[in-house]
Formats: sequence, structure tokens, C-alpha cells
Amino acid sequence: MANTISIFDTTLRDGTQGEGISLSADDKIKIAQKLDLLGVHYIEGGNPGSNSKDIEFFQRAKGLQLNAKITAFGSTRRKNSIAEHDSSLLRIVESGVPAATLVGKSWDFHVHTALQTTLEENLSMIYDSFAYLKRNDVEAIFDAEHFFDGYKHNPEYALSVLRKAQDAGADWIVLCDTNGGTLPTEVHDIVSRIRSELNAPLGIHTHNDCELAVANTLAAVQAGARQVQGTINGYGERCGNANLCSIIPNLQIKMNYRCVSDDQLQSLTKTARYISEIANVHMPVAQPYVGNAAFAHKGGIHVSAIMKDSKTYEHIRPELVGNKQRVLVSELAGQSNIISKAQELGLDVNAGNEKTKVIMERIKELEHQGYQFEGADASLELLLRDAFGEMQELFKLESMKMLVEKTSGCMNAEAIVKVNVDGQPIYTAAEGNGPVNALNNALRKALEPFYPSINDFHLSDYKVRVIDEKGATAGKVRVLIESTDFKTTWSTVGVSNNVIEASWEALVDSIRYALLSMNKIDNAHEEPREQHGLVNH
Amino acid sequence: MANTISIFDTTLRDGTQGEGISLSADDKIKIAQKLDLLGVHYIEGGNPGSNSKDIEFFQRAKGLQLNAKITAFGSTRRKNSIAEHDSSLLRIVESGVPAATLVGKSWDFHVHTALQTTLEENLSMIYDSFAYLKRNDVEAIFDAEHFFDGYKHNPEYALSVLRKAQDAGADWIVLCDTNGGTLPTEVHDIVSRIRSELNAPLGIHTHNDCELAVANTLAAVQAGARQVQGTINGYGERCGNANLCSIIPNLQIKMNYRCVSDDQLQSLTKTARYISEIANVHMPVAQPYVGNAAFAHKGGIHVSAIMKDSKTYEHIRPELVGNKQRVLVSELAGQSNIISKAQELGLDVNAGNEKTKVIMERIKELEHQGYQFEGADASLELLLRDAFGEMQELFKLESMKMLVEKTSGCMNAEAIVKVNVDGQPIYTAAEGNGPVNALNNALRKALEPFYPSINDFHLSDYKVRVIDEKGATAGKVRVLIESTDFKTTWSTVGVSNNVIEASWEALVDSIRYALLSMNKIDNAHEEPREQHGLVNH
Repeated sequence: MANTISIFDTTLRDGTQGEGISLSADDKIKIAQKLDLLGVHYIEGGNPGSNSKDIEFFQRAKGLQLNAKITAFGSTRRKNSIAEHDSSLLRIVESGVPAATLVGKSWDFHVHTALQTTLEENLSMIYDSFAYLKRNDVEAIFDAEHFFDGYKHNPEYALSVLRKAQDAGADWIVLCDTNGGTLPTEVHDIVSRIRSELNAPLGIHTHNDCELAVANTLAAVQAGARQVQGTINGYGERCGNANLCSIIPNLQIKMNYRCVSDDQLQSLTKTARYISEIANVHMPVAQPYVGNAAFAHKGGIHVSAIMKDSKTYEHIRPELVGNKQRVLVSELAGQSNIISKAQELGLDVNAGNEKTKVIMERIKELEHQGYQFEGADASLELLLRDAFGEMQELFKLESMKMLVEKTSGCMNAEAIVKVNVDGQPIYTAAEGNGPVNALNNALRKALEPFYPSINDFHLSDYKVRVIDEKGATAGKVRVLIESTDFKTTWSTVGVSNNVIEASWEALVDSIRYALLSMNKIDNAHEEPREQHGLVNH
Repeated sequence: MANTISIFDTTLRDGTQGEGISLSADDKIKIAQKLDLLGVHYIEGGNPGSNSKDIEFFQRAKGLQLNAKITAFGSTRRKNSIAEHDSSLLRIVESGVPAATLVGKSWDFHVHTALQTTLEENLSMIYDSFAYLKRNDVEAIFDAEHFFDGYKHNPEYALSVLRKAQDAGADWIVLCDTNGGTLPTEVHDIVSRIRSELNAPLGIHTHNDCELAVANTLAAVQAGARQVQGTINGYGERCGNANLCSIIPNLQIKMNYRCVSDDQLQSLTKTARYISEIANVHMPVAQPYVGNAAFAHKGGIHVSAIMKDSKTYEHIRPELVGNKQRVLVSELAGQSNIISKAQELGLDVNAGNEKTKVIMERIKELEHQGYQFEGADASLELLLRDAFGEMQELFKLESMKMLVEKTSGCMNAEAIVKVNVDGQPIYTAAEGNGPVNALNNALRKALEPFYPSINDFHLSDYKVRVIDEKGATAGKVRVLIESTDFKTTWSTVGVSNNVIEASWEALVDSIRYALLSMNKIDNAHEEPREQHGLVNH
């Protein structure tokens, strides 16, 4: 088992130090369950000594049947005190976790500046704290804070810190690049040297301040580290922690180490997206391995080549991490992009086909008008299905009216829509804190009686840009709307001289796509709820 | 100058292969000018053989006075043809660029599968194409596509490809990790071997599919590469290209290489944010070096330590890259930026000044609400002038009302505004093809009699972005408006839950700025035209 790497996830602890990330105890329980399915070995739940939310988490986590070890986080005992009396250490033991991580200083500068104590006292703090954990039968992990900076400034002292933890019985010694400023060659060199000095197994904990956290982690593993600490999607303080979503597939697919099972690896994309939804943080489309664009092809040459053999422009098969290939349609692309997109939808299409020529012309014309389908898969799919006669008309829009008023600081928006479902006219109105919100509310209110599943998804992003800059406010705008049902996301586009009309178009596409493609409509459509009559008035 | 690294920016070419990135010729000109100020050595503008937008860019770029070399991109000649007759190569030469990059195959698998030709013919294609560029006195850069994959499969052939380009006179041989699947140790090993085989200087071009593009670039430089290809913010196909915003500071601050001047390095953050605004792509807060959270501290221990010495939790001084420290619990905004801006305007400001504290508080509060003054100089200037009592009230807004109506395909927008100039109420209405256009028309109609110079400028760009992603259509939006009088441009910002209100705010700022700062108001204001009475009714 020399090539097995222990995955230590700290999304719930270090991850929550990231800007805009805040998780409730309930969120943490949900995430812990997903992490366990992914197969990580340690799940650091938080700091039971710092807040009641974390205490609640550890309480509830005891009831979960997990394979992973739930771990608690804390610091070495306070200076000039006794470990047995340290409330933070006591709470860790009381939380009943099988394993705990203690952070301690290994950079002399920090001992002086931040702790404001002596180098000797810091060594005692480390020894006492680990001896205390081991007396209480807790697996003990030492996070040697700022280890690389410390080692570069004072290698003897940094090493003596590690030795103290080892002597006290620490089960893992984890070298931390806390400020994220170390280079991969330095990490490799320093970890190799430490490897030869210690018996305890080593771990690595890096931050992404130089965009090198993943590379530094791999370098440490190549130099002998056997535990990897990181977070899902790289959440964490400042530029984030090392991203496990890149590290796990790199180690397992590219470097022949074993982290999780192959089946578990296939749940990586799903897990990353689920956690980004719970954390309510937008996942960058370009995120390696798990992002929506990670295997998306835009350049015409690329697309024609991947249709011959996907290995030409893909470094791995996307299925290995549960992601999938996408072909983006854009001005840079040729016909091959559209054909492969249509084939993906199971439509009978090929280069010679008459319908293909017609739809190509239509897309070219729309792109000329300012539509952009590479960021609007769902609108493209509707267009293709439409051209192939596979579209079902769910509702018809008769008219809409919008009133926005501002008087003495107060702003108000109202939308009035007239929709027709199966010959039944629905005339309704709603307000909102902005025009698009009011429109969205009115349209949903009109359709909900017929399609109650409309409540299963919502809009998650909204973007506007002027296409034709010559006119600016008189120019055309393109609106992109992203929607989600918490499992997948889809994007739709609208173009008009009028931002309200363009938003309306993208909004309608989003709803049509969701209702059609998610196969949620059949039952609902046949039995519209009785109360819809009430909504009309 | 052994430690000088040539920076080759391909934001305008490879960067536009990224999902959701589409740049007009005008956008490209603006970005090229910023890249030149940053000090990059090469700016790849696009592919003159592929579309008319790029041809327009190269035409207009000739008129720019840049230090950087504008370069064109293309492929080696088509198989079984003659370089002199290759329309793509002809257009590169015709575009008049001083340097050009040609991509060619170096992986035998690609020669067979994608090009569908013989290994011999591929070598001739490379030789002929570079010989042709050199006969036309163009600096010639060879992008050896899929070099690392090619070398791993068939090292002899991959090397013979490079030798052909060198023999034909190529000035740079750039090794590309096109699929982004190579590891830093492999890159270092392969580049070192190639370095000993060739005389031509080497470059490196990596992609981020394993989250290793930056590390791979650094590894190649350590092995002897002297040109680095990448994009601002790492834009590019799939997971993006190597991110120059991380590579440049890593090379220059950490590794003692020389890329740009220290002053230019300080413009890095500003440049990255400007380009993300032009591309209308959200910049991740956690982006290394240039992100809004790159030097933001949240953890309690971290914050108390950085108050003692910022080196405790910062790997570099943020000012080196033009970024700034932020403390998320109690915002310490970049006072120096504001002070230098105010001094630029001739306002009496310094760190001890009471007014400065008040305005700092106000700006902090607005930034907290979602305003961003980075891309809205004119709004910031109005705010500063306002705080220093230097603002003249030109007009007062009493109310506005907006009606948007859509019936059977026809869309209409009307705006009704009530404005007060010097105690005179003006109540007027106008229509437009969209709500912002209608508002702009109504406001200008109301003000024109008092300020006829309002006709000397117009809006040139309009952008909307959701700030608070939680609510999407119910969330806050930020509107950026750019205006021009054909000599200069200025930008203003508005924030609201309501896109109309945010637009209105930015619109009003744009007009106030123009009338005030351009000293166009004095005469007009004293002698309002007689006919303004007519306009009111």
C-alpha cells in the first residue's frame, strides 16, 4: 500500500475561511455525507473550541454512519498553561472525535511576533498538547503552520518543532505552506529532507496564493508525503486551499497513486457541484476536471478533430471524473460543432442533410443578430429540437406590460402578462424589486397551476452586455440567464434592443427548457390544478 | 540578460476560445493598449485568415504607438499545397505584423488522425511555412502543438519537427501542452532535454486542465525556456491558458527573472480587472495576486497577527502587484488610492484630514453595497468633488416613470421624467427602443435647453452584472456605463436591485460628469435658451 494517499478534507473548517463562505451546522452535515460518499479519509468538521455551531455539528455527526473519520481542529495549548486545563483541548476530547488536528508554530518569527513567547515554551506547548491527545486515545495530526517559511529562515528550529510532536506521539506530521508563497521545487526539496529526518508519516497542506497549491501538493507527494489536506473546489482563506477536485484525479489518473475507488472518482463532478450549491458560491465554468467547460470545445479545428478522436484535444476521458464533453457553438466554430451537438441530442443529423443546412443558416443568422449559443446550451437545444419538429408548445405568450416608477427614493416594478395554455388565456400580474424579477414572478404565477414543477428550479445568474456598442443605450443587448435545479445548470440567451425584451426571451427559454427536457411536464400537463382559475384574476 | 523572460500574451487569440468570451475589434484595441502599458513583449491579436473582425483589428492596430509587437496567428500551410498560395499565410504577411505565430503538428497521432497526411508531408508543411515567413521578413514563432504528448509517444518525430522549424529559420520554438495533461516534473525533464538539442530559443505554452498551467510554465522556465505564452486571468479554451497574472509575479518576485518593470508590475491588478470588465467575465474573488480576496483576511488569529506584522500571513506585499490588503471583519480600504486620486483632482486631502476620513467611510460603505470604482473613475471623481464641496448642482431629479409594453411582436418603451433646474420644474417624456434608451432620451430632452453641450457626447458602452448571485433576478445588479465625446471616455457606475434604477444612476452620473468636468457649462448655464419652455410641455 506504499502508493495509497490519505485524503484529508478541510472544506468544513479551512474552507469556511474563504470570503463569502458560511455554512450552517445543517449544511455541514449534508456536505460531510457527500464527502464520505466521495471516499475521503478524514473530514475536518470545525473547531469545537471556537463556536456553538461546530459543537452542534460534532454532536450530530456522531449519529452518521460514515467510513471517513470526523476530525476536530484546535491549537496547541495556550502559553504558560497546562494542557489538561486548556478549554480548547478539553472540548476536542469531549467532542468524542476519533482524530484531531492541532496547529502549532514552526516559524520562529511567528513564535516571537504572533505568540509573543519563547522558542522553548512553544516546543513545550507542542509536546504537552500532543501527549494530552494521545493519553486520551485520539489520533493526533500536527499541522506545522508556516513550516516552509520557518524552515527557510531557521531549519534547525523548524525541525525541532516536528521532532517534539513526533516524540509526543503525533500520528501525522503535516507540513503547511500557510501563506501560499512557496514554489514546487522548494516544496519537493524540503519535504525530501524532512522525510529522511523523521519516522512519522508526513502530510502536506498548501494554499493557492501563487496559483501553485495543486503543484505543491503533488511535489510533496512525489517527495514522500502520504496525507493530502485540501478542500473541495479549493475554498479557503484569501486565494483558497489546495483543490482536492484537481489533486485527487491528478494523483489517481496521472500518477498512479490510490486515493478513492474508481467509482467514487466518478462522483467527483457531482460532489463538487453539490457543494458549490450548498456553499452558494458560483463554480467557475473553467474549473479543471469538474467545471462545466472543462471538456468544452469551441475552436473549429478542435471540434473537427475531437469528432475524429476525442483524445486529440482531451487529456482524459471526462467520464472518469463524472464530467462530460460539450461542444460550444460560436463564430469560431464550423458546422461540425452543430452536428455533434445535434447528435448528442439524438437528432438525425449529418452534413448532407437538408434540415442541417436550414438550421445552420438559422444559427448563422441569429449569431449575426447578436445571439451567442456557446454560453447558452439550453437555447441551442430548443432551437435544434424546434427545427427537427420535436418541440411541444407548452404555452403561448400573448402580451406583457411593465411599469417601473421612482418617486422620492422609492422604486417599484410591476409586470402584467397574458399567457395562453391549451387555449386557456391567463392574465395575471406580479411585482418585484426589479423589472426582470417582476416578469419572472408574473410568468411563474401564470404557469404554476399547469406546471407545478416550475417551483423545482430557479434562476442562478443573470448577465447583460451591449453587442452593438455604437449606439450604447440604443444598441442591442444580449442577456444570458443561468438556471439551476440544484443538480444541473442550464443557460439561455435573449437578444433585443430592449433589455426587458431580451431578458423576457431568455427567461421564457429557461422555463421551456426546464419543463421539456426534465420530463417533468407529462403528468402535470394533463391534470392542471383546479385552482389555476383563481390565479388568473 | 540571461534572466529576461519574454512575455507573449494571447488573450486576444487563445483567450477568446474560452467559454463566454467574445471580443469586438474595439474591445481588442482597448485591451491591446492596456497590455502594452503592462509591458508584455508580444500581443497576439488574432487570426487574420479566419475572420473579418481580426482583419479590422490588425488594420487599426497599425495606428497604435505600442512598444509591444503585435503578432498574427495561423497554421502551417495546408497539406499538398504551396506556401506562396496559402491564403492564410498570405493574409498574415498582408496584415503587416512584425511577428507571427504558426501552429504545427508535433504529435504523430495528430498528423495521422487530424491532418490525415504523412509524417513527411507534415515536416514539409512546417519547413515551407517558416521559410515563407522568413523570406517576408516576419519574426517567426513556432507553436509546436501537443509537443509533450507527441514527445512522450514518439520522441524522434517530435524532435525532428522542431528541427525542421529551426532549419527554416524560426526565431522561437514554443513547446505546447495543448491538452493541459502534462505534469511539472515531465515538463521540466522534456524541456531540459530539448534545450540541449536545439539552438533556437525555447518558449512554453500550457493549458490549465490539471490546474498545473502556472507550475508547468515555471518548470519550463527553470529548464531553460525564455518565452512564456499565456493570457490575462487565464482565459482560454476549456480550463483556460496559463495565467499571466500569476506567472509574471511568480517569475519576477519569487524567482528573480525579469519580465516587466517594477512600476508595470504594480499595474497588474488594475489591468486584470479592466480586462475582466471588457470581457464581461466575473473575476473570482480568490484569484491569486489580483483577486479582491487575494490579500483579504478573515480568520481571527490571522487578523490579529497581520495587525502586528502583515508578513505573518501575506507571502508578498500586495502593493507590488497593485493590490491591497483587506480585513473582512473591519474593512481597511486602500486609503492611499483614494488620496492619490483626490490629489490628482487638486483637492486638499491627506491621511489626517477629517474630510478624508468621511469620504473613506462613504466609499467603504458604497463598496460594501456593491459599487466598484475600479472601472468607474468618473463616479469616483464626482463622489470626491461632492465630499469636498466642489460640486455644483446642475439639476435635481424629482421622479421618473417607465412603461414597457409588448404586444404581438412589437415592443415599446416610454419614459416620463421630472427634473428641476434652478427652481424650474421640467416635466417631459420620450420614447426609445429600450427602457434605458428612453430614459436617456427623456433626460437629455429635459436638460438640453439649459445645457446644449449635452449633444457633444453620447454613451458608448453599457454593461450589467449581477453582484449578489443568491437571488439572480431578485439580486443586486451593477451597471457600468461608458461615455465618450470622441476625444476622451469616462465610466460611471450604478447599483440597485432594479436594473432600471441602477442604469438611471449611472446615466445621471455620466451626464453630470460631462457637464461639470469638461467646463462646458458656464456660458450655457447663465443663458438658458429661450425655447426651453416649449420642451416642458
